[in-house]
Amino acid sequence: MNTQTHQIAVTQFVKAAGINFAYRRFGKKGSVPLVLFQHFTGNLDNWDPLVIDGLAAEREVILFNNRGVASTEGEVPLTYGAMATDAIAFIEALGLKQVDALGFSMGGGVVQELALQKPSLVRKIILVGIAPRNGEHMQQLSPEAQAIFGKQRENPDELWLDVFFSPSETSQAAGRKFLERYRARTNDRDAAINERVAGNQLTAIGEWGQPSVAGEERFAYLRNIKQPALVVNGNNDIIVPTINSYHLQQYLPNATLILFPDSNHGSQYQYPEEFLQYANSFLNK
Amino acid sequence: MNTQTHQIAVTQFVKAAGINFAYRRFGKKGSVPLVLFQHFTGNLDNWDPLVIDGLAAEREVILFNNRGVASTEGEVPLTYGAMATDAIAFIEALGLKQVDALGFSMGGGVVQELALQKPSLVRKIILVGIAPRNGEHMQQLSPEAQAIFGKQRENPDELWLDVFFSPSETSQAAGRKFLERYRARTNDRDAAINERVAGNQLTAIGEWGQPSVAGEERFAYLRNIKQPALVVNGNNDIIVPTINSYHLQQYLPNATLILFPDSNHGSQYQYPEEFLQYANSFLNK
Repeated sequence: MNTQTHQIAVTQFVKAAGINFAYRRFGKKGSVPLVLFQHFTGNLDNWDPLVIDGLAAEREVILFNNRGVASTEGEVPLTYGAMATDAIAFIEALGLKQVDALGFSMGGGVVQELALQKPSLVRKIILVGIAPRNGEHMQQLSPEAQAIFGKQRENPDELWLDVFFSPSETSQAAGRKFLERYRARTNDRDAAINERVAGNQLTAIGEWGQPSVAGEERFAYLRNIKQPALVVNGNNDIIVPTINSYHLQQYLPNATLILFPDSNHGSQYQYPEEFLQYANSFLNK
Repeated sequence: MNTQTHQIAVTQFVKAAGINFAYRRFGKKGSVPLVLFQHFTGNLDNWDPLVIDGLAAEREVILFNNRGVASTEGEVPLTYGAMATDAIAFIEALGLKQVDALGFSMGGGVVQELALQKPSLVRKIILVGIAPRNGEHMQQLSPEAQAIFGKQRENPDELWLDVFFSPSETSQAAGRKFLERYRARTNDRDAAINERVAGNQLTAIGEWGQPSVAGEERFAYLRNIKQPALVVNGNNDIIVPTINSYHLQQYLPNATLILFPDSNHGSQYQYPEEFLQYANSFLNK
């Protein structure tokens, strides 16, 4: 029986690849565990408790900080590929032979690399708000996105209202509910990220915006990711333009695409019930 | 209580706009009825019984032949707009003030015209395997599609294996199950279409492939269809190229997009369980 939730799950540690990885593991035992890969600058607390608990109702979930992030030791690597290598060490250190993987934004790039590097370890993948390598308009942030990141805010976490939600009244109202959920845990929150995390992750994001080999066929590598995939995004993602989610679906051999209306980079937190229905159904079948 | 099914539903008639419209109406009473708009050359029997009964389990469904098709009198009009005008007369003749509308292929174009002509009559819309007016590669059939329509077949209804399903083994197996379901009703099948239906409908399809006014902003009219919309297609629709479903989602103000893997023009018949889950959930909420 699952006695933990996102709100109270205890942070644990496991040694892998020479460092201690911080993670929280909870949920219904008995099926393939779901490992969740976090976005830029996020730590264990940056998930939506409503979404995580909804997933945990039907399977074990494993939240973790990859190398160098918050309560995990080490230095953040400069490529998604190296992040995936660390993730494999972490998953294997838990004694797991096969997992499902959900990646949000940067995490979705790492999940693609994970599926390429060690296909046997990955049963199904969920890619939210992410592009293929060398995606469209992924070489630099749009002027709109730059303005959002540059804006001063009384409460810094209100950044997520602009990054994850659309400007509409409906979407902003959903965003304020998300913020309440995100802030709800007050005991034993994760450590803050150090001052090198953002810079290293930005380097990795930039590397992912380029072809891995000059002149290679764009997106062709996706043909090698054979796992069933669920690709999710908002209709107007200003951080990772939505057309990239369409490309993921078109090139992955076995992918379903869901695009939500009136939404931005964090559509899964705007439509948590719908997202849970789609994601749980995809993982269960 | 619903005692009818797709298999045994009796064909009824109602007079509207000077002609008798043939229809079948059944399913769970008490919510907004769903009117279904058929594809090119299809009649009352061309729906998938599994999908229709799955929808009818949660609402009334109304299958109908529009003007000139099979058991409905008159001549098929030469535009989707005129077909929508006839559909409005039919729906109002049933005494209905508001309906949901599902259109498949050509039917999805008629549903767009319906929502534009009489928004108050339409609560929600489902658009399967269809493009916006003036859609991409909609001016003529692709060479691949032309070959499919030109091929001689021992059983003519095996056309649908090529039109609705992808060439993969999995998809063709799903197609053969669909054909079994499609053929199952033997009593009181609908009348065949007459020899003028295909020609007139092709004219209407061609008209829909053009802008309504030369030089107008492409797809801008979709901003005026404010109903919640569910847009569905296969990842590789060779009849109505899949990018058009993406455009529908991008331009409709309130649309969710679902694209299925390894599928063609009839993805909803390849994945009936998933489609029913998405469609019923969309219509119920």
